Amino acid sequence: MNDGGRARVVDLNSDLGESYGAWTMGEDAAMFPLISSANLACGFHAGDPATMLASCRLAAEHTVSVGAHVSYPDLPGFGRRAMELTPVQLYADVLYQLGALDSIARASGTVVRYVKPHGALYNRVVHDAAQAEAVLRAVRDFNPSLPLLGLPGSVILTLAAEAGQPVRYEAFVDRGYQPDGTLTPRGQAGDLLTDENIIAERAVRMVTDGTVAATDGTVIQLQPDSLCVHGDTPGAVRMARAVRGALNTAGVRIQAFA
Amino acid sequence: MNDGGRARVVDLNSDLGESYGAWTMGEDAAMFPLISSANLACGFHAGDPATMLASCRLAAEHTVSVGAHVSYPDLPGFGRRAMELTPVQLYADVLYQLGALDSIARASGTVVRYVKPHGALYNRVVHDAAQAEAVLRAVRDFNPSLPLLGLPGSVILTLAAEAGQPVRYEAFVDRGYQPDGTLTPRGQAGDLLTDENIIAERAVRMVTDGTVAATDGTVIQLQPDSLCVHGDTPGAVRMARAVRGALNTAGVRIQAFA
Amino acid sequence: MNDGGRARVVDLNSDLGESYGAWTMGEDAAMFPLISSANLACGFHAGDPATMLASCRLAAEHTVSVGAHVSYPDLPGFGRRAMELTPVQLYADVLYQLGALDSIARASGTVVRYVKPHGALYNRVVHDAAQAEAVLRAVRDFNPSLPLLGLPGSVILTLAAEAGQPVRYEAFVDRGYQPDGTLTPRGQAGDLLTDENIIAERAVRMVTDGTVAATDGTVIQLQPDSLCVHGDTPGAVRMARAVRGALNTAGVRIQAFA
Amino acid sequence: MNDGGRARVVDLNSDLGESYGAWTMGEDAAMFPLISSANLACGFHAGDPATMLASCRLAAEHTVSVGAHVSYPDLPGFGRRAMELTPVQLYADVLYQLGALDSIARASGTVVRYVKPHGALYNRVVHDAAQAEAVLRAVRDFNPSLPLLGLPGSVILTLAAEAGQPVRYEAFVDRGYQPDGTLTPRGQAGDLLTDENIIAERAVRMVTDGTVAATDGTVIQLQPDSLCVHGDTPGAVRMARAVRGALNTAGVRIQAFA
Repeated sequence: MNDGGRARVVDLNSDLGESYGAWTMGEDAAMFPLISSANLACGFHAGDPATMLASCRLAAEHTVSVGAHVSYPDLPGFGRRAMELTPVQLYADVLYQLGALDSIARASGTVVRYVKPHGALYNRVVHDAAQAEAVLRAVRDFNPSLPLLGLPGSVILTLAAEAGQPVRYEAFVDRGYQPDGTLTPRGQAGDLLTDENIIAERAVRMVTDGTVAATDGTVIQLQPDSLCVHGDTPGAVRMARAVRGALNTAGVRIQAFA
Repeated sequence: MNDGGRARVVDLNSDLGESYGAWTMGEDAAMFPLISSANLACGFHAGDPATMLASCRLAAEHTVSVGAHVSYPDLPGFGRRAMELTPVQLYADVLYQLGALDSIARASGTVVRYVKPHGALYNRVVHDAAQAEAVLRAVRDFNPSLPLLGLPGSVILTLAAEAGQPVRYEAFVDRGYQPDGTLTPRGQAGDLLTDENIIAERAVRMVTDGTVAATDGTVIQLQPDSLCVHGDTPGAVRMARAVRGALNTAGVRIQAFA
Repeated sequence: MNDGGRARVVDLNSDLGESYGAWTMGEDAAMFPLISSANLACGFHAGDPATMLASCRLAAEHTVSVGAHVSYPDLPGFGRRAMELTPVQLYADVLYQLGALDSIARASGTVVRYVKPHGALYNRVVHDAAQAEAVLRAVRDFNPSLPLLGLPGSVILTLAAEAGQPVRYEAFVDRGYQPDGTLTPRGQAGDLLTDENIIAERAVRMVTDGTVAATDGTVIQLQPDSLCVHGDTPGAVRMARAVRGALNTAGVRIQAFA
Repeated sequence: MNDGGRARVVDLNSDLGESYGAWTMGEDAAMFPLISSANLACGFHAGDPATMLASCRLAAEHTVSVGAHVSYPDLPGFGRRAMELTPVQLYADVLYQLGALDSIARASGTVVRYVKPHGALYNRVVHDAAQAEAVLRAVRDFNPSLPLLGLPGSVILTLAAEAGQPVRYEAFVDRGYQPDGTLTPRGQAGDLLTDENIIAERAVRMVTDGTVAATDGTVIQLQPDSLCVHGDTPGAVRMARAVRGALNTAGVRIQAFA
């Protein structure tokens, strides 16, 4: 989407709507004004229907694009535990979540504009063709022009591009990168950045230069359509504000890709 | 809808899609060819997504209209236990289920054509205006031309009619009626009929005469748009076949109302 | 239990262990050192097994008595929504929760020492004899010497006392009381106190005088075995600390009743 | 346990209590009189508390030993889908299920006498040391003399034996065996036997000769403490009856191992 290294526009996405019933997670009210796209939980890892409704209303109010953050069915594990679903189970689970969120979004004056798999499913469809294919087929059958947001080089985005489904690439402003362009696994040195100034600077460079420095200093090429900022960490709001401010200062417009 | 006592057409509806994961309920494959409308569970009392998918495909194959059988969130209780949801919770729960089923229906070549509350929710919205209003609002916000199927005289149908939402009336071929037109409570004498010949004869009379005999013999006026035949009892298939056969013989066409 | 108006010892109980998976609720680590009894969620309204394990370990470490905070099966509603369970369902649900918590407690070096129904179930068994009887029967069959903690005058405690099951009475330090000794319904004037000094003073008076002033000034007699301090409000820790401090100053020892 | 090839006693175990709420699975009433040990679902893959209660009462009535059929938390997948739980999650999940079932068993006049992991967890702890260790630790902390029933050669039984936890070996009367003693994977030729006479003969040979013929004819040595007969297939009752009859005829006593 971007003109490599010279982009003047980028999307900011964040995982929101992750409360459930009486439990709150994240500072959604503070995050919505700072981002352009919200990946909203659909009830399988978080997001009971009333939470989904509140989230969609906030999205509509702030003109933030709604993305379906589809997940494995795993509330106690928050969708972070890999599961061996059959293709038909996964296909049906994704269709179910897409429709459920879209229905609530439409009643709130907006609509599902893209899909981003969540947690363990996100990681799985990077390399597992069977699960990637099942998710893709559900998205296509729901809406063949709905973009999939994911990791550059992932199997699901490759399959989607081949099938003619729109794809969008995201980069992570606070995650470490390996020289080969993959993320530094959690738990390893440099997996997570926390200094908001460094993160903000990095975000700008990702967009305007199309590059990011790997943990060993190697410069990696990136062309992100969207930057992911976390919504559920203590400093999430401050980090998002810093990223937004730095992008503005650098003349980069923040705008939803869908 | 019907020209009182002279109808030549009626809908046959049945609660189907009530399996869940490894558990099967009902003989859906045998019931689909016999009915014109299927009330499909949406995951809250029964019907995991893969079951919903299989049900929607059967409905499409047999040109049976899909209805959303929306429920309280209660798998262990099969939606048969009254629950004190707040209006916003119930509103969001219904929107969620409608969208989930519609998404799966569309991917299967059909679409949600009407709504029928299930179990304890069905009974509750007969008299509880707050819950009835919440359900109605969800249905309206989902689709203002989607018919609600329910009990004549129920609060939800009265509110729906006032609001301009289409309503359809159902009668129960195998349930006893009180002289005032309400159903004989389960557990009381005459609550349930089991003789398929009597049931079939009664179904014909409901449609062609617009009447049914109450448990005390009183003749009650009815104008059913749809006859409900149970899908989950041992003799369900035989009963549905008898009803269908008798209606055919009487020259009544079986046709979905939506 | 107490020698009316002259007690020198009281229990402090709080609802803890109400996190679930990735969601945290309350400041359990700060609350445990301040109380003598912890009502722990058992997985039906909150408290996945890993949370229960962490809670039991904290209880064992702080020598806090573990109570089973048994609930309706309602995660999205946090057990705050009344449900129409049959007696056998409720009986089995309570047995299930008691055993599950006790097993985790024993593996953590402690044991379930009492039972307190949660939320909508707590309110229901104040007046509903059928549900009260089902809960009581489960507690008796689990352990006939396990105390039930509840509201003075409630049906469940009356039935329990008649059956020979130990009962303990609780008072609420921050809830308004009606002249007849019942709690001021939430939403009405004076339903909730927030000034920690007033609350602390009130706690002392409840124990040392055996009285509390109703919202209209009427003095009500109380003989609480346990004072309930909330664990999930923003000021919960400060309030518990104030109550504990005031009781200490007044020479009242804080000690678990079981 | 057995004196290789000369056993005169064996246990018959079956997976029962697999209904859930309104859904029934298996013909438990017919199976209980035929077996000596029942692996009962504990609510995570099947078995709501009311079902567990009914199952424990049947077990007590028929003097059948109750085993805890512990599972991953996966109702829609019936515990048949592998899940990546952390060791502490799995440890807590197993403790929770053991206590829940034991509480209901004790109220029904019996007690949990052994543990058998279910479905995907059963298969996982055959080879995964981390999950096997977590399950084993939970069983030990629940009751250090509670036997684990499983596959000979599995990692969990090896670890259990090393730790001093009792182990019992099972053989499958209707599953094909590979020359190396492992089960023929489902879907491969010879994976499942259906002829009840062959199955019954095989059961006798397993116990009296301590052998079974692999799919290629190789004779494998076995010393089963327990024979597993399926409880949820259409011919389950007939198969169990045939196995029981053949064992009786061969002079083998059927008796629970715990």
